[in-house]
Amino acid sequence: MPVNRTDIDLAHALADAAGAVIRPYFRRNHGLELKEDRSPVTLADREAEAAMRRLIEAERSGDGIHGEEYGVKEGVTGRQWVLDPIDGTRSFASGRAIFGTLIALVEDGWPVLGIIDQPVQRERWVGVAGRPTTFNGVPAHTRSCAALEGATIATTSPHLFEEGDVPHFMALVTAASGGNPRQGPVYGGDCYNYGLLASGHLDIVAESGLKLYDFAALVPVVEGAGGRMCDWNGDPLNANSEGHVLAIGDPARTDDVLEAIRTLPHAH
Amino acid sequence: MPVNRTDIDLAHALADAAGAVIRPYFRRNHGLELKEDRSPVTLADREAEAAMRRLIEAERSGDGIHGEEYGVKEGVTGRQWVLDPIDGTRSFASGRAIFGTLIALVEDGWPVLGIIDQPVQRERWVGVAGRPTTFNGVPAHTRSCAALEGATIATTSPHLFEEGDVPHFMALVTAASGGNPRQGPVYGGDCYNYGLLASGHLDIVAESGLKLYDFAALVPVVEGAGGRMCDWNGDPLNANSEGHVLAIGDPARTDDVLEAIRTLPHAH
Repeated sequence: MPVNRTDIDLAHALADAAGAVIRPYFRRNHGLELKEDRSPVTLADREAEAAMRRLIEAERSGDGIHGEEYGVKEGVTGRQWVLDPIDGTRSFASGRAIFGTLIALVEDGWPVLGIIDQPVQRERWVGVAGRPTTFNGVPAHTRSCAALEGATIATTSPHLFEEGDVPHFMALVTAASGGNPRQGPVYGGDCYNYGLLASGHLDIVAESGLKLYDFAALVPVVEGAGGRMCDWNGDPLNANSEGHVLAIGDPARTDDVLEAIRTLPHAH
Repeated sequence: MPVNRTDIDLAHALADAAGAVIRPYFRRNHGLELKEDRSPVTLADREAEAAMRRLIEAERSGDGIHGEEYGVKEGVTGRQWVLDPIDGTRSFASGRAIFGTLIALVEDGWPVLGIIDQPVQRERWVGVAGRPTTFNGVPAHTRSCAALEGATIATTSPHLFEEGDVPHFMALVTAASGGNPRQGPVYGGDCYNYGLLASGHLDIVAESGLKLYDFAALVPVVEGAGGRMCDWNGDPLNANSEGHVLAIGDPARTDDVLEAIRTLPHAH
């Protein structure tokens, strides 16, 4: 086992290890159950995270680890590997290859490296602070968006927003669609939507209630592709953010998006 | 060009022709625009349907054709080929390979042959009345579902139901999830969800506002896999159905599903 590989090489190895665990469970008996917080988990989630933690403990024993399934291991370096073995467990368990493994390296609270990996379609977005994001090794770029009206917005589910947030989200949707339901949000997709935004196929993703392991990896991927990641106030995302997440492919639309999501329609 | 191939072979050839058109447009410049009814359409939709119509006109000149993009051509045989070149244009245009080409043969108003084809992932479900449904050539089966509580429900978007239908859909969701939002419906997916149900990865799909070209192909696929397709009253689907569609993987749950979707919670 290489002990001196770079953080990026290690992150690739983590994604490889998770994918090798996950693929054989896809559309097979994955042992879906509900955790205490009533979120779904499968054998694939648990075994993939365990495989990644073993690699990190072997090669970066001083770094912290924060994983969705096995919690926090404190480190001594100010560096923390943040893992979500399957973001989109419901899609995974339903046979839809639009879930992803999320791997982030967070230094002093700030995400500096992120991977979104789709192991069935073998698609991988890699973002590193200060470097261009890649999709399967080729640079990825967000697309320009001339106006909020006409922008394509994605989110996983209207039922996953925190209480009180849906009207704000729908205000953003209305500004983008002019109220046309056939141009409403693209639903489903979890982390995969952020990869698609980084590759220029979507304009905006908006969610709330996300945990650090849900969003840390997305930040370097989207920003290294030319997009903007922030909370619903426009502030950058770090380990202290409370889970309101916006991804905006064209940073020139940031003010429009923030204004729309803050403004509620007048009551009638 | 073979002139005497069977209907099934012709249906495969139609799916092949559509896929060959669609794949080069995926994640490329597909020319998305809105039609008069404000639904989205791309060059891929139009050219794929045109390719299929050419084949049908060459080999089944007396049959009718009903396509989403180019409308109805009356036939003289009582047989009609019902085509949706891309069901899930929003997913297609967003780079998500969970859309599908739908091809149905309808005889005297009843769907007797159906294909759901995902050309990017190269996945094909084929249903023929009275025969076992296949997925990429291998028999597909729905799964059993011991109780409505715990069933996985899918639908494309809460904004695509006809007016007044959302509370009925949510009553079904509540019966299945016990109100746990993390066990709420799986969103997105269009026709692809019905294929996943036929292969035993989902239990129920419920939608309304569907057109004949949205649902005709689904009927032989789901029923040949052991599932039940009906409208929200439990009646079988044919060319006169008005677009309320239910797919139920385990027919033993039909009464439970119909009761749940008909019953609204008491007003408070």
